[in-house]
Amino acid sequence: MTYERAHLKAMQGYTPGQQPDTPAIKLNTNENPYPPGPAVAHALSSFPLDMLQRYPDPLAGNFRASVARLHRLAPANVIATNGGDELLRLALTTFLDPGKPLGLLTPSYGLYSVLATIHGSPLASVPLGNDWSVPDNTAERWNAAGAPLAIMTNPHAPSGALASAAELHKLALTFRGVLLVDEAYVDFVDPEIGHETSTMVAAYPNVLILRTLSKGYSLAGLRLAYGLGANELVAPMLSKTKDSYNVDAIAQAVGTAALEDVRSAARSWEAVRHERRALDRALTAIGLPCSPSQANFLLATVPAGGRWHSAEKVYRSLMARGIFVRWFDEEGLRDKLRISIGTPDENQHLVEALRLLGGSQ
Amino acid sequence: MTYERAHLKAMQGYTPGQQPDTPAIKLNTNENPYPPGPAVAHALSSFPLDMLQRYPDPLAGNFRASVARLHRLAPANVIATNGGDELLRLALTTFLDPGKPLGLLTPSYGLYSVLATIHGSPLASVPLGNDWSVPDNTAERWNAAGAPLAIMTNPHAPSGALASAAELHKLALTFRGVLLVDEAYVDFVDPEIGHETSTMVAAYPNVLILRTLSKGYSLAGLRLAYGLGANELVAPMLSKTKDSYNVDAIAQAVGTAALEDVRSAARSWEAVRHERRALDRALTAIGLPCSPSQANFLLATVPAGGRWHSAEKVYRSLMARGIFVRWFDEEGLRDKLRISIGTPDENQHLVEALRLLGGSQ
Repeated sequence: MTYERAHLKAMQGYTPGQQPDTPAIKLNTNENPYPPGPAVAHALSSFPLDMLQRYPDPLAGNFRASVARLHRLAPANVIATNGGDELLRLALTTFLDPGKPLGLLTPSYGLYSVLATIHGSPLASVPLGNDWSVPDNTAERWNAAGAPLAIMTNPHAPSGALASAAELHKLALTFRGVLLVDEAYVDFVDPEIGHETSTMVAAYPNVLILRTLSKGYSLAGLRLAYGLGANELVAPMLSKTKDSYNVDAIAQAVGTAALEDVRSAARSWEAVRHERRALDRALTAIGLPCSPSQANFLLATVPAGGRWHSAEKVYRSLMARGIFVRWFDEEGLRDKLRISIGTPDENQHLVEALRLLGGSQ
Repeated sequence: MTYERAHLKAMQGYTPGQQPDTPAIKLNTNENPYPPGPAVAHALSSFPLDMLQRYPDPLAGNFRASVARLHRLAPANVIATNGGDELLRLALTTFLDPGKPLGLLTPSYGLYSVLATIHGSPLASVPLGNDWSVPDNTAERWNAAGAPLAIMTNPHAPSGALASAAELHKLALTFRGVLLVDEAYVDFVDPEIGHETSTMVAAYPNVLILRTLSKGYSLAGLRLAYGLGANELVAPMLSKTKDSYNVDAIAQAVGTAALEDVRSAARSWEAVRHERRALDRALTAIGLPCSPSQANFLLATVPAGGRWHSAEKVYRSLMARGIFVRWFDEEGLRDKLRISIGTPDENQHLVEALRLLGGSQ
């Protein structure tokens, strides 16, 4: 006797990157290598215990007001969620009828297709170019498939490639469904590029932007993210489809403090960018070329038939040495490793381990 | 242009009880009137900041182990969720194909039917008896409707009536779908009754029990609940349908501490029971009879044409005095008020205010 729905029975769940128990160099889940700032520490240590007794603000008013100030939008353009995963799920629940396809670019964050399977929706996948560029006719292909919703990561994971604001405007204008831009890594984009998308919220009724405090604000353990969009997009998620009390009281208080002290977080972004350049050079120098990345990770290619045998072998050898990176058993990615930017010390250990592994063959 | 799915456009969301900004006597959302114990305070104040940097344990291993010990079950019988609402939603996602009916008893927690509407499922509602008893043929009626999932609250809300373990066994045995017993209030049942249901997990493949730390452990603000069920029921939610990191690191640590110190929580349960008896007597004495309740609230009837005019009027008059109780604009409940058990002081204020309101008409 089985009670699980038939289509779930047939599927595999999403497997998050490993969380090692033992002390390790953890460069596999794109966390920020630097701790949260003093404002977060203070908000946590001064959190009043008796607030735990009561239900939290179901609409996370203070936090949403802070987000609105940061992006020069109204609170009605903001929804707070229990991590970015919740916003992704809510977008499917709210804008996609089961059976209708979800627009994607491939490869992409594996969770997107898992969510579509749970929801009972097929995929309208558009493969990225060889240089991870977004094909010109992407919106047209999503439209042709009849996709009411499409999700893209920008900067892209696992490559780190950034689609320009101009490309996004074109997509938003041409695509007839809701365009969810998952900006989990956008805080790490070089400021010189001037990449700015929150103005799209006022310009397009169909753009939903996902931002998270997991990476940029060093708060992956807290589960806090937010969506930005036109009031008409945000309202049904806020008042209907999200769980009533989806964000807990501590996350609301700590998250608000983190946003109010954005300068602390910004120092970590600058440090990560600096290390990204350094690690990119070091990996390239030892024969592991990286895609140009605007995120807090690098996608390195392990050349076929070279010193390292294969990416999978390197991945496993590093793990045996307590260094965790990510390898995807997936078309177009099997010869690659996704490496989160660590502290200078962690990155140096990684490069030394790679040198040793390459030399010993 | 609208992007919201058509069936959502037509629906109203669930409205949680009001969260007043100003200091008030809040007896409207069934929170525990006593603060969490010292173990919770300690877990919160000693929570290591650097744990926020990393993703939490996606499976909440330590917390689930504590739950398993408490109920003499295995961790594989346990899922941790972001409040009880998440488990309710996951049960629909995992066991109910959209279009198939959700079995309910009515009246019940308004969220159940909202979740069904979002999911695209009709209701198979069985009305409770006049004394809030579960009709004998309930399982047969759910079966006849073809419901793959049914949800019941026990003790029932908003009446506080307790269906016996024997009744639950009969339902589980006869019902062909998954029976979700929402035990949000079960900690407040008189221990003399010896009500015990976690043994049903081993006996029935189709019983899923919902427990929450919101009420019994004074942690509504933390968002932490859990489900107990056969491994085959729990596994698909744990590995497929829940969000990857659904419970944050602080909730896992604080919740584990709360369960390990169950004796602190149990003192609040005993105090609430004592106050429940006292408030029941006081309300009955002034002409507001209450249903027998095993929960942390009372359902009082405002007699028609009596001193108080109507339940709605009392509800509004109390609110104007800063005392919040719950009134449901719903068939069978319009002449009633649901009053959460407060501290002795809060309950006394309530009774005095009711006396005044009744006398002044």
